[in-house]
Amino acid sequence: MDSTRLVQLKQLLQAFNIPVDDRLDWDCLDQALTHPSASSDRNYERLEFLGDAALRLAAAEFLMTQFPKATVGELAATRSRLVSDDMLAQIAAQHDLERYIILSVAARYDLAARQSRLADALEAVLGVLYLSTQDTQWVHHCLDPHFQTLATQIFQDPALENYKTALQELTQAHYKILPDYRTQELSQTHGDRERFSAEVWVEGRAWGAGKGRSIKLAEQAAAREAYTLLVSHLSA
Amino acid sequence: MDSTRLVQLKQLLQAFNIPVDDRLDWDCLDQALTHPSASSDRNYERLEFLGDAALRLAAAEFLMTQFPKATVGELAATRSRLVSDDMLAQIAAQHDLERYIILSVAARYDLAARQSRLADALEAVLGVLYLSTQDTQWVHHCLDPHFQTLATQIFQDPALENYKTALQELTQAHYKILPDYRTQELSQTHGDRERFSAEVWVEGRAWGAGKGRSIKLAEQAAAREAYTLLVSHLSA
Repeated sequence: MDSTRLVQLKQLLQAFNIPVDDRLDWDCLDQALTHPSASSDRNYERLEFLGDAALRLAAAEFLMTQFPKATVGELAATRSRLVSDDMLAQIAAQHDLERYIILSVAARYDLAARQSRLADALEAVLGVLYLSTQDTQWVHHCLDPHFQTLATQIFQDPALENYKTALQELTQAHYKILPDYRTQELSQTHGDRERFSAEVWVEGRAWGAGKGRSIKLAEQAAAREAYTLLVSHLSA
Repeated sequence: MDSTRLVQLKQLLQAFNIPVDDRLDWDCLDQALTHPSASSDRNYERLEFLGDAALRLAAAEFLMTQFPKATVGELAATRSRLVSDDMLAQIAAQHDLERYIILSVAARYDLAARQSRLADALEAVLGVLYLSTQDTQWVHHCLDPHFQTLATQIFQDPALENYKTALQELTQAHYKILPDYRTQELSQTHGDRERFSAEVWVEGRAWGAGKGRSIKLAEQAAAREAYTLLVSHLSA
């Protein structure tokens, strides 16, 4: 690796509050910041797979320690937000991760894929941190401050505008199944707020219904209703 | 804890190939083997949440080391089988885990819930092992022999009769979405092999269709077709 890249990678770790020591494998970190468009075999995909698992474990540890009285359903729903692409991309952007990622010119201008690219690369970096210490210590260093901020918000408003994810975590935790969405197109007018309708079914029963401009929005509205109802049903 | 229980728990660890030392928290292990029917607040639920995450990480580590040439899609699909309730319940049964679980009489006779009870308790035990060492070392001790056997089988027949799970892992890895199943009841005759039909949609396209005696079987048949097609599409 050339010395410019090494200096760059050291800067990145500093930004993430990670002490630089001999356990860090620099080649591996360089690979974690290499997009598949730059190399089909030496890229971040496998490290991302590992990092995703280390991230979920670290988030579970964090939540269990910080919220000793939360139910498992609450822990699962909160974790799904802590480890979401949304949240990861936001952290990555705060630390300007994008400028460290090696990728093809075409991929750089694929702005639609930017968010998942940032999230994937951050997960891969977490994979390297995990491999370096063989435990979640550095992952916590890097993420706990972010977990703290977001988890506090979520415990104030559990679904935080993403009711589909919250509902999915809830049904997986309690019934080991995914919610089943049934959608219909009611009109073909683009922009019509009632263009699509959605129902969400869990265990043979419709728990919520909603309408929206897009299938996604209709499903979110249905999920919101179902989530609220199901939470009160489960705690009854 | 009374001495009989302690002797019993030591036997269990021995069966799982775990060395008994001071890092083990016996009260915590006892809690990992307490079903919610026996205690609503001191039971295995939270430990299971942690153990599930430690298990997924350990399985990822195992697969990445053992199958350095596998694609991420293959790793994800294989892992979903290694950490499935099926597999966990099988391991738990092999080590006679059931006799260590404290539960109410009513729960003991709920045979339908036996498999998930065994899987949940095993995950909780893995959570205790993870907490004891603060790394995945003991989880590997306990599970690597099982991972080895099953992973070898799966790499010979990737879907191993559970095409819905395999397909879901594949679409999540490649498209970050879940497959969408659309089912219909064709006849009302109980036992009719073509009673239900299912189609499975991914990214706006139907990739497979199937029929079956139950919705689940029809979906499995559709998933099998879709999985095969999608694997060849993705590797094209």
